[in-house]
Amino acid sequence: MNRPVVVKTIERIGREAVEQLEHFGVSTIHEAQGRCGLLANYMRPIYSGPPVAGYAITVSLPAADNLMLHVAVEVCQPGDMLVVAPTSYCSDGYFGELLATSLRARGVKALVIESGVRDIHLLTEMKFPVWSRAVCSQGTAKATLGSVNVPIVCADALVTPGDIVVADDDGVVVVKRELVDEVIKMSARRSERESYVRQRLAQGESGLDIYGWRDRLGDLEYRD
Amino acid sequence: MNRPVVVKTIERIGREAVEQLEHFGVSTIHEAQGRCGLLANYMRPIYSGPPVAGYAITVSLPAADNLMLHVAVEVCQPGDMLVVAPTSYCSDGYFGELLATSLRARGVKALVIESGVRDIHLLTEMKFPVWSRAVCSQGTAKATLGSVNVPIVCADALVTPGDIVVADDDGVVVVKRELVDEVIKMSARRSERESYVRQRLAQGESGLDIYGWRDRLGDLEYRD
Amino acid sequence: MNRPVVVKTIERIGREAVEQLEHFGVSTIHEAQGRCGLLANYMRPIYSGPPVAGYAITVSLPAADNLMLHVAVEVCQPGDMLVVAPTSYCSDGYFGELLATSLRARGVKALVIESGVRDIHLLTEMKFPVWSRAVCSQGTAKATLGSVNVPIVCADALVTPGDIVVADDDGVVVVKRELVDEVIKMSARRSERESYVRQRLAQGESGLDIYGWRDRLGDLEYRD
Amino acid sequence: MNRPVVVKTIERIGREAVEQLEHFGVSTIHEAQGRCGLLANYMRPIYSGPPVAGYAITVSLPAADNLMLHVAVEVCQPGDMLVVAPTSYCSDGYFGELLATSLRARGVKALVIESGVRDIHLLTEMKFPVWSRAVCSQGTAKATLGSVNVPIVCADALVTPGDIVVADDDGVVVVKRELVDEVIKMSARRSERESYVRQRLAQGESGLDIYGWRDRLGDLEYRD
Amino acid sequence: MNRPVVVKTIERIGREAVEQLEHFGVSTIHEAQGRCGLLANYMRPIYSGPPVAGYAITVSLPAADNLMLHVAVEVCQPGDMLVVAPTSYCSDGYFGELLATSLRARGVKALVIESGVRDIHLLTEMKFPVWSRAVCSQGTAKATLGSVNVPIVCADALVTPGDIVVADDDGVVVVKRELVDEVIKMSARRSERESYVRQRLAQGESGLDIYGWRDRLGDLEYRD
Amino acid sequence: MNRPVVVKTIERIGREAVEQLEHFGVSTIHEAQGRCGLLANYMRPIYSGPPVAGYAITVSLPAADNLMLHVAVEVCQPGDMLVVAPTSYCSDGYFGELLATSLRARGVKALVIESGVRDIHLLTEMKFPVWSRAVCSQGTAKATLGSVNVPIVCADALVTPGDIVVADDDGVVVVKRELVDEVIKMSARRSERESYVRQRLAQGESGLDIYGWRDRLGDLEYRD
Repeated sequence: MNRPVVVKTIERIGREAVEQLEHFGVSTIHEAQGRCGLLANYMRPIYSGPPVAGYAITVSLPAADNLMLHVAVEVCQPGDMLVVAPTSYCSDGYFGELLATSLRARGVKALVIESGVRDIHLLTEMKFPVWSRAVCSQGTAKATLGSVNVPIVCADALVTPGDIVVADDDGVVVVKRELVDEVIKMSARRSERESYVRQRLAQGESGLDIYGWRDRLGDLEYRD
Repeated sequence: MNRPVVVKTIERIGREAVEQLEHFGVSTIHEAQGRCGLLANYMRPIYSGPPVAGYAITVSLPAADNLMLHVAVEVCQPGDMLVVAPTSYCSDGYFGELLATSLRARGVKALVIESGVRDIHLLTEMKFPVWSRAVCSQGTAKATLGSVNVPIVCADALVTPGDIVVADDDGVVVVKRELVDEVIKMSARRSERESYVRQRLAQGESGLDIYGWRDRLGDLEYRD
Repeated sequence: MNRPVVVKTIERIGREAVEQLEHFGVSTIHEAQGRCGLLANYMRPIYSGPPVAGYAITVSLPAADNLMLHVAVEVCQPGDMLVVAPTSYCSDGYFGELLATSLRARGVKALVIESGVRDIHLLTEMKFPVWSRAVCSQGTAKATLGSVNVPIVCADALVTPGDIVVADDDGVVVVKRELVDEVIKMSARRSERESYVRQRLAQGESGLDIYGWRDRLGDLEYRD
Repeated sequence: MNRPVVVKTIERIGREAVEQLEHFGVSTIHEAQGRCGLLANYMRPIYSGPPVAGYAITVSLPAADNLMLHVAVEVCQPGDMLVVAPTSYCSDGYFGELLATSLRARGVKALVIESGVRDIHLLTEMKFPVWSRAVCSQGTAKATLGSVNVPIVCADALVTPGDIVVADDDGVVVVKRELVDEVIKMSARRSERESYVRQRLAQGESGLDIYGWRDRLGDLEYRD
Repeated sequence: MNRPVVVKTIERIGREAVEQLEHFGVSTIHEAQGRCGLLANYMRPIYSGPPVAGYAITVSLPAADNLMLHVAVEVCQPGDMLVVAPTSYCSDGYFGELLATSLRARGVKALVIESGVRDIHLLTEMKFPVWSRAVCSQGTAKATLGSVNVPIVCADALVTPGDIVVADDDGVVVVKRELVDEVIKMSARRSERESYVRQRLAQGESGLDIYGWRDRLGDLEYRD
Repeated sequence: MNRPVVVKTIERIGREAVEQLEHFGVSTIHEAQGRCGLLANYMRPIYSGPPVAGYAITVSLPAADNLMLHVAVEVCQPGDMLVVAPTSYCSDGYFGELLATSLRARGVKALVIESGVRDIHLLTEMKFPVWSRAVCSQGTAKATLGSVNVPIVCADALVTPGDIVVADDDGVVVVKRELVDEVIKMSARRSERESYVRQRLAQGESGLDIYGWRDRLGDLEYRD
């Protein structure tokens, strides 16, 4: 059944691929992989910044109890991103500047949490990126177990440990490890095509012509 | 009945009046015109900036389908603002940096959309102002028709094509074309009166005395 | 029963204590006083800034009517913070730049309001800090009485006149006047302990060891 | 500008047409008239019951003030429905059993209000149908004017006095007076077609075949 | 500071007064006591029924932990109502049919909880009335202490142990113990006046005349 | 990548096990399987009724487009339950009485949809159970493909085709096919234990004693 477990090791793909995904950003990747893997849009950055990508370390924990965050820190490695989801709705402040210090000491790049965080001012100062559902000073208990590195649902998206998580001002998207190469290829292709389209749009051409959608307007009546 | 239509030409009042409304900003105009025409306050700017005003080009389109935005671009002219409302609740990302490039090429000043937008970082960089209900990477279909330049309800406000839309950090307000002159006059009067009131308040006078409201306190008991 | 009243004088503790609370900030104080007194986390600052603390001047007023704000101004003194709660849900713009001018003239440090405010741009420019539930241009009536300096519930927290209110980017917390000394002592103790913990975390030690929580993991299964 | 006014007389179409619309119900009418005129789906009945239709008497009034409801009662006639929208978000209890008694005395069929109502138990007992955004005991002021029988936006829909409002367990829809005949014709046609479709579906036929949509599945891969 | 405590005995007023309040119901009492003491309107009954009133036994407990409900049961006596508020937002199912059985065994009349409950079907069958913010199967921990019979804020209202809580289909209201007699007197007066007004309204008289509000319409323009 | 696919056949466990799960209901099963698999509590039944359980047929489809529901019907068999999730937030009415007729013709027991439904009155009359996020008359397009019988996230829960879905007045829970036997065993054990506890609670015993939690109260201060 659903017993607490910590899976200590996950597979991590090469860093170069992660950097490429980081470069493309959330909206391009989401489109490139066929519009899947997007977290719900109530997940917002606590401050504006460039895209961040990393290996998902997943945490499933109870509402209002952050004991498992301290457990998860120990399995993190450089380049990881912590992805955290309580098992029921909660907006308490699971995470603040001390845990960020701990994560940074292990090279973790960012936090994605479907709940609340605090110490916003300090986190911004130390430039530790966080995407969360809420900001809240309310602390949590440290009493009940959960699991680390099991598949979780975070903000409507399935996240498997080792997936690549990409986050920026647009939101957060998850790329399945086994699809990374194809997603990079498709993102690059999309990016190139967009450069070309952008140029034509900037010159005043209509998207209807560039994309060839004018024949979809069949029934549309134009009036002066 | 409700058949898709594009009205190609709208009446636009003189630019000078638009600039004057832009100068006053949303809260002054909303008060000056008798507290009407305000869009619901879930309409927020994607970045903070000065007030923007323009001629409303209206778009009514289905949830999760942005084909009509591409159609609407073609009828836009310099000084316009695109005002977009889906026919049912949606928070998908109808609009991003490519459509902004297209609008900018035609001199459109801003977008007001009762749904989601994406490419927040790029839109901010290119200083294309947007007021929206949500930020969301999720793209839309391009399959179903809607209408351009028909009266629409956007975020609880009725917007008629050619109305002047003013937006700033406080929100978005619509000024009926035929009332623009009176609204400018009333806004100016209000602005002047506020300068005078501000000065007295800054010297420590009570608003109750300045506005003459002290007699409304009849039943109020004062205690030490 | 519930008749409108203005209590003109409140007891104010010494300024030094207020400054000390201001220094600690919301999250530390909230923890230090046993996790009570926090306002609901929909209370957000209109702009990011350092912590502010002051003596609570409380205002209970009807939905959509701000007459009592003008009354409350008159009982404010330097170092106060205005804490305002309508008697039912409202998000209208009770407060703008003119009232801020009036409060500033009396040395009031900030506003906390469980409703809406407007003139965001001007309030930010004049650096008058506000924590509110909403931003909204919609003005209010000035017709109905309420009370000043009675105990109120604001955003789920009981606020008694003369309590110390502390607000920052994390939210807003209330410290009971009679507990201020103990809260300062506990906050200082917590702050010191955190410095020590921070140092150890920064060196890569586990929070589980520092805090001594490893024995809580009894049932936790570790797997490779 | 926006000055308070009461338009005493509205045009009412024949009763027979209203009864026919009442018979079809909200979802059929909404589809039949091209998917327009639907109020936002936070408008819910206070109790379940059959569809109700009537002539729209519109009321625009301030947040937290119901003086204009008492004014509106006087212009109501048998077969009318009161449609009420505050000028900004409010959930207070504008309406209860006494006002329902007053409306019933004049033959008004129902209330549609984008705010709160109270006396739910009594309203249910006297079978006075109400569609509202909220249930709330909080009463309102009776101090500020608004308008009766001007076009209003209620729950995202434009309502013009004399429009036919139809409400049932699915929600509320508005039919423009001038389109009533066509909407009835289209609703009847839709109803008939649905009877036929229902029969075939009940026999286990696929909607894809009945509606002829199977060729839209071109790219769809079927796997065992 | 904020240390967990159980106050075992509270003062309870005479039963007759409670029954009288029960008879008047929420909306009448709320008006009669000057529109205070109303809980936020997201507190809804799990099933429709007659008004219930009782002595408030208050419980303050952590998010997602119901240990203190089991503690509170032991101090309950016949005629009590349990009023429960977590110290931060939670919608988990703190309460179900077993706890209801326990409360019923002690003569407790109902539960008011600013969180979630479960076993809706069984609670309805056993006719145990509950007003809650949510319905949710998610259970809670039983690990962390809180307090019983201290003043709490529940759904925006201050509740002191021994206050009379009245709840019905309109919501929940709190009557301060020391005001009960006056509230009963005012409620009775209001009830009588309403009977008289109801009769006149039923005969088609206008509320404007009955209440004498017609002179408030000074600026109102009437048009045909 | 994410290409539309229909998996025609799923594995279905024996009917008897499904009936046993149906008997236990949501809250018991959720606890028995270690508090996992619960859908978010905004999923509510359109009418109150007994628990329903069935084999999950999953549908992933775009916002505002129900073409895939018609496709899914064809792979349904007696005893199935349709579980539907749009790829982004939507509350439109994807489903009404005609589709219910089609599903019933194939023996489908119920619908679970993270969006809107319509024809509430007819669905209630024909006793076709639905759990949904919203009620909404707004229809959908029938233009864009999605997938049937792939793993989906519905209302925060991962649903794999062939999982057993159980729904009642408390909400909706998913049981992994491979865990069904253990969940039944645990549910039965829990049910028995609850019968025993219920009896003792009904006789006035304290849950603290029955469950043996009194030693958790160590720090709790009792006062008169």
